[in-house]
Parts: sequence; structure tokens; C-alpha cells
Amino acid sequence: MKKNSLVGAFKDLLGAENVMESETDRMNYAYDAAVLAPVMPGLVVRPRNTEDIGAILKLCNENNIPVTVRGAGTNLSGGTIPSMGGLVMLTNGLQRIIEINEADMYAIVEPGVITAQLASAVAAKGLFYPPDPGSQTVSTIAGNVAENAGGLRGLKYGVSKDYVMGMEFYDATGTHVRTGSKTVKCVTGFNLAGLMTASEGCFGVYSQITLKLVPPPKASRSMMAVYDSVDQAAETVAAIIAAKIIPCTLEFMDNFTIRTVEDFAKVGLPTEAKALLLIEVDGHPAQVEDEAAEVETICKANGASRIQVAQNAEERNKVWEARRTALSALAKLRPTTVLEDATVPRSRIPDMVRGLDAIAARHKLTIGTFGHAGDGNLHPTILCDKRDREEWHRVEKGVEEIFELALGMGGTLSGEHGIGLAKAGFMEKEIGRGSIEFSRKIKRAVDPKNILNPGKIIGG
Amino acid sequence: MKKNSLVGAFKDLLGAENVMESETDRMNYAYDAAVLAPVMPGLVVRPRNTEDIGAILKLCNENNIPVTVRGAGTNLSGGTIPSMGGLVMLTNGLQRIIEINEADMYAIVEPGVITAQLASAVAAKGLFYPPDPGSQTVSTIAGNVAENAGGLRGLKYGVSKDYVMGMEFYDATGTHVRTGSKTVKCVTGFNLAGLMTASEGCFGVYSQITLKLVPPPKASRSMMAVYDSVDQAAETVAAIIAAKIIPCTLEFMDNFTIRTVEDFAKVGLPTEAKALLLIEVDGHPAQVEDEAAEVETICKANGASRIQVAQNAEERNKVWEARRTALSALAKLRPTTVLEDATVPRSRIPDMVRGLDAIAARHKLTIGTFGHAGDGNLHPTILCDKRDREEWHRVEKGVEEIFELALGMGGTLSGEHGIGLAKAGFMEKEIGRGSIEFSRKIKRAVDPKNILNPGKIIGG
Repeated sequence: MKKNSLVGAFKDLLGAENVMESETDRMNYAYDAAVLAPVMPGLVVRPRNTEDIGAILKLCNENNIPVTVRGAGTNLSGGTIPSMGGLVMLTNGLQRIIEINEADMYAIVEPGVITAQLASAVAAKGLFYPPDPGSQTVSTIAGNVAENAGGLRGLKYGVSKDYVMGMEFYDATGTHVRTGSKTVKCVTGFNLAGLMTASEGCFGVYSQITLKLVPPPKASRSMMAVYDSVDQAAETVAAIIAAKIIPCTLEFMDNFTIRTVEDFAKVGLPTEAKALLLIEVDGHPAQVEDEAAEVETICKANGASRIQVAQNAEERNKVWEARRTALSALAKLRPTTVLEDATVPRSRIPDMVRGLDAIAARHKLTIGTFGHAGDGNLHPTILCDKRDREEWHRVEKGVEEIFELALGMGGTLSGEHGIGLAKAGFMEKEIGRGSIEFSRKIKRAVDPKNILNPGKIIGG
Repeated sequence: MKKNSLVGAFKDLLGAENVMESETDRMNYAYDAAVLAPVMPGLVVRPRNTEDIGAILKLCNENNIPVTVRGAGTNLSGGTIPSMGGLVMLTNGLQRIIEINEADMYAIVEPGVITAQLASAVAAKGLFYPPDPGSQTVSTIAGNVAENAGGLRGLKYGVSKDYVMGMEFYDATGTHVRTGSKTVKCVTGFNLAGLMTASEGCFGVYSQITLKLVPPPKASRSMMAVYDSVDQAAETVAAIIAAKIIPCTLEFMDNFTIRTVEDFAKVGLPTEAKALLLIEVDGHPAQVEDEAAEVETICKANGASRIQVAQNAEERNKVWEARRTALSALAKLRPTTVLEDATVPRSRIPDMVRGLDAIAARHKLTIGTFGHAGDGNLHPTILCDKRDREEWHRVEKGVEEIFELALGMGGTLSGEHGIGLAKAGFMEKEIGRGSIEFSRKIKRAVDPKNILNPGKIIGG
């Protein structure tokens, strides 16, 4: 079909109001939150319901049109950039929470439900959906699952993957596929739900996702530990885990990030501190009491100069607001923000922090480091200006060295931001040729025309 | 290659002592724990190390030889029956625990490590590997992962799948593939480890598995609640979860099972009881105290005639020995034991128990029901004699009705025993044509000659 008649076909299918072809509209969907060049899609469409997803895919497959699915576009690795043009499918309008089942502790949702909205709806029923990526107030569940998004609570509660019980999706041909169950245990058929999770839109488009819910913790306590040395803060992280305490959240912030956040948000952070740990333990009240005391002792033993325990909800919120503000505060300093997420086994956090310092010094880079120290998932954030070619060259060097640093410690290229376009070229170094070839076989089998988010993760 | 020269090729590769061709040897590997006809393999081989796995697969693929991998052969769905003949590969000799990392809380093991041995080795380091399938004292980790084995602790701690962080495997061509990581968070590449889990040997052969470990609970308490009615016991299960208490273990036993176990093991079970619940809560001592008290209250409110709390380790062991004995005690009664594991959302346990009673009555079957009530995963066990064709016909009818009963409640064909050969024919009813076709595409892509455990799960 020619382009004009194709646009007509989509309009017939979805109604003209759900097919966007103007340059302005298309420009809105040419980029995501990664620092990568935008690529204009040829067309942007909105399914009106989940059945439309199948019909759109069928039409695309018949006409060899690349399809990039997009929720809120908060992707940090270029996964939602339509790098081969074609069509962007916006699923963020499919926002129905189909069921929250209290007795069996699961929720069934459409792909476009916003993470924080699901979390609130679930909390209103006395249950808990733990995954809390930084983008949770805007990002969608389908985006979270496609990227296997993590968040602050990953250490204790796991990541999006750990909550996917089942799903329905449409494959490249528009065929409907069902996998998984509403039961806690299910081994009926291959673990397609597992394969689909973290697949960045390369194998199909979710139409419905069944998520595990858990009882909420009865109590929690937050505290801030202040350090005169980055090393001591990093050693504390390893010591807490070694004591077999798994905090709900165990976050790190270096001096540069502290000062920037304080400047931006005025929450009373100690700007002279070399590093902060923000720690929350949760669970049964007595467990919280014990663990909080033990964590305090460990912090002190590892050189914390001061520990401030949140005395009430307001103080607690202040701590976490400070942390949640980190990225936006840093991002204001320079035109370009490169947010990394190379991850190491948590015991290697001290080495990782030292290594990052060395990389910053070697390439004269401004790196603010914060993030999920408890699960080895720091976010070194390079502040720069991409238009300055000399500086950008140093940034690229630095990023490569960060990858090598993490891999050298038995770590991984990406803890939670995905591979997308940004890291596709580095994949082989970590997982090897065999793994990429195996992946390509699967991709070719389920998407022979390579229409589903082509070029992502495994290139090609 | 002709058979004789093939046998020679395997002997050259592995040494004659690792190639078994006698009828007796081959007969040992013709069946597993499922009630299915044995099929003799043509040859049985033992890799001496993990590299041999790749070499064996390469030779098989080149010569179109079906390969069925076998750990301890405890499979309950025929997954380890070499139904198309060919070769059985025994990986139970590869028993090395490569690493138990306390700081980063993971273990790396070879495929043949026995589950209970890993659990002990991990416990000796002060950590905890929770999955505890009934076969744990003999079954291997690779078998557990291939079947996504569950166990008594699934309710609170999840199943094998929830502990797989990464793995290495050889694909059908003998190519080595690496996926996943030693880090808590990892989104580098597709979730091949997820796909490989529960794949019943159809996509590759594991050579190394990285497993998540967790801190052990500090305390636990076990109790037995005695009921004069099955309904009351079943309602109690739903009520405990509704109170947002997640016991470590929440097991059910009907009167028939109670009497049989008592007869067999003499542990002092109340043989007059219509049903028992065996419950263990664990965690922080104060939480255990609170939850145990609350569970007692709920049991009484739902009609328990008596509650017996284990006062010491000996009493606790007695409770769990009784439960662990259930299957072997029942199996002694009649020549054939059909152990089912159709699973329902846990709130439907009361309906499921009533439905099972009705099926037993309708088809005049002896069914002893016990199992993991807390996660909806009961094990109705049909005692019969397969040689009695009339009775066997009634058993087959009954099994089909159990499947329909579970599916009608939004449940699943198999909670933890796998599909294998036994349930392959019922798959479409649950997951639909689309899901089977999608699975077949993957299977054909990664195993074009269909040598890896052919005929399992998706038939063909």
C-alpha cells in the first residue's frame, strides 16, 4: 500500500482522531528520555481499545511497517525512539484497571495504567504494589514491564519482573497470545510472560498484564546517615547487607548531588557532607525497631558523623523528596544529562564509587552519583553539553569506562534502564556472541519481518 | 552415522564408562515418576564436565538424535521420559557448588547439585535457599529450574523461578549461551533465563545456574489445626490470606490422607479429624508471635476443634514429617498413584475441595487430597490400579474433570509438576491456540531439528 492509502487504512480502523500525521504531532514522539538523536515516525496512532492493538499490528505486518510502542516515553535507553521510522503506537490511553483482587492478591490492568495510580488504587484496598521507578508518577505499567523497571525498593521487593504473573499480548502478526495465570504457582506452558518481560517491545505488544500484589508492611522507619568520606558510606552499604538486614531502600548520594539537590529543593541537606545514605527499613513494628537500631550502629561503626531518624511522616517525606529530586536537580545544571545505571554486585559498591571518581578525574567530567546502593545499582550522572564535541568525546570515553568498570566487577551494563539503542553496541561484551545469536533466532521466529521495535537490544 | 559408529563417537568423546548401552542400563532411564508408559532410550550418556554437554549436543544435532536431559528423574509429568527414543543425558553427576557468595547473596551451581544439599550448604553460611519441592532430598537444581518446581514454602517465598538470577546453557547446536547476572538488578539483553526456566529441557541444557539467596527468618512457629469439616478448613485458608497474613507454609490434609499417614508413620495425627491444616509462620520473633496468635484466632473463628502448637523442634519436625510422608503413605495403598496439581486462585480452595469430593463420588474414585492450600495448589491423589481398564477409564475421566474444575475457577492445569507428556494434550484449553503457536515458533527457531526433548509441552 502507498503511504496515503495506508494512512487512510489506519483512519478507517481507528477513526481520524486517533491517527496523527502532522509534523508537530510526529515530532512529539521522535525522542524519549535518552540522550540520543530524535527520529521522526511516519505516523502516530492510538488504539481505542486492546483489540485495536492486534488490528494495528496486522496492518503493519502486512505492509512491513516498523512499530514502536510508547507509553509515557520516559525510557532512558532510546527504546521508544522509532529509529527506523514507521509507526508509533501510543498505548497510554488504555488506562483501565480491570480488577484488583484482594482475596487472591493480584491486579489485572491495561497497558497504559500509570504506575503510581495503580499503586494508589491498590493501597486503597489495603494492598501493596512495590515497584517504584523514578518515573512512577508518569510512566505506564506496560513501559515498566517492557523495561523491567526497578526503583528504590528493588533491594527488598524486587523489580517489575518479580510482579508479572501473566499477560496477554498481540504478536507481530496481530495474533492474540495468553500466558501465565492468576495463581501463585503456574507451570502451564513455556514462561512466555518471563520472555516478554524486559523485551522492550521486540516480541509483541501487551494488551493486559496480571500483577502480583503483596500485603503492605505494617511499619517503616527512614533515616539519613551523614558521612565525611564516600568510602565510609559505601562500606556501610556492604556492612548492612553483611549483617543480613535487607532495608526496603538503601540510597546513596555524593557531595555534588547533595549540594545540587539542596540548592534546588531546600530540604535541609547537610551540604558539607561527602556522602549521604538514605535508608528505610520496613516490616513488623518490632522488626523495624530492631533493624533501625542495628542499622544505626552499623552506620556509626563505619564512620557516619551523624544520623538523623525521621520522627514523623513529614520528615520522612522530606528525606525521600530529596532523593527523588536528585535527577531533576542535576539535570538543571548543564544542557545534557547522561544518566548511567551500570550495576555491580553490592559488595563492590565501594570499588565502584572509587572507580567512578577516577573516571571523572581522568576525563575531567562532572559526575554526580546517587542511586540504589543497596542493590549495586548506582546512577552516575554526567553533566555536560552534547554540542561541545570535545567534551562529548570525553563523555563517551567516560561512559565506556564505566561499562568496563562494572563488567570487570562481575556487574552488568544496565540494572534497570534497558539496552534499547544506547547500549546495543556493548551487549556482546557482557553476554557473548552465543546469547545474541540465540536471541536473534527468537526474534526472527516471532517477528520475521522485523517490524517490532527493530534495531533495539540486539541491533539488526 | 550408523548406530554403532555413533556409540563409538560418544565413547571417544566421553570414555566408555560414561556411555551406557545395555538394556538394563537403558531401562533405568525409560521412565520417571509420572504414570506413563516407559520408553527405552537408545543410549544413555554422562557428561564428565559442563563442556561435555555442548559436545554431546553438537553430536546429537548433527545426527538428528533426540536428547532428553535427566537429573534425578523425579519428574511427575513425563518430562524425563525419552518418548521419541534417542539419547538420555544424565547431568546428575555434575554436582559442584561453584560459589556461595555471602556478601552478595547468590550461589552458582552446576546442574546436578541436589536441592537439599545446596540448601544445607547455604544454611551453613547463614543464608537461605527457600524452594523445597517434595523431592528435594534427591531432585537436582537443574530439574527444579527446568520444571519451575514449587514446594511447601511457595506461598511466602515463591518458586524456583523466583530464585534464578542467571544461567549458562548449551543450545541445540551445542553453542554456549550466557544470560542474566550476579546482580540483583539486570536488564542486559532479553530475559533468556526467564524463558529457559520452566522450559522442561526443550530449549537447551543448563551448564551453570546462578541462584538468589536470602537471609533466613529469625524465628518460626508451626501449628496443626484440627477440623470436623473440610469446608471449615478450606474457609480458614481463605480467611488467613484475607487477614493479610502470609504464612511460610499453609498445608491441607483430608481425612483419608490423615488416616493413611497415621497408619504409615504413627506420628499421632487425629485420625477422626475431617481435615487438618498445618501452618508455619516465620520472620522476626515478634511478628511470629503476633501472626501465630492471629492465625489461631482465625482457625478457631472458622471452626477448628483443636489447635496444637509445636512447642519445640521435635514437635515441629513431627508435624512436617507427617506432611512430607503423605505422598509415600498414600502411594502404598494401591498399585497406581496419580498425583494431580491443578491449581486455583487461593480464595477458590473451598470450592475446589467440594468439587474434588463430587468428582470422587461421581466416578467412584479413591482420592486423598493434601497439599499447598495457601497457594491454591492442592494435590488430589487418585489411588487406583492402571491394569484395571474399567477403573483406569474412570480415573482418566476424573482427571479431565479436575482440569475443567480448576480452569473454570480461573486456575491452571499445573501449579508445579509441569506439562511434559502428561498434560500436553490439554494445553490449548488453558492458554489457547495463539500461545501454542507462538511457543512453537520459538521452539523451531532455537531447535530446528527438534532434538531437545521433542514432544514435550507443545507436542509436535
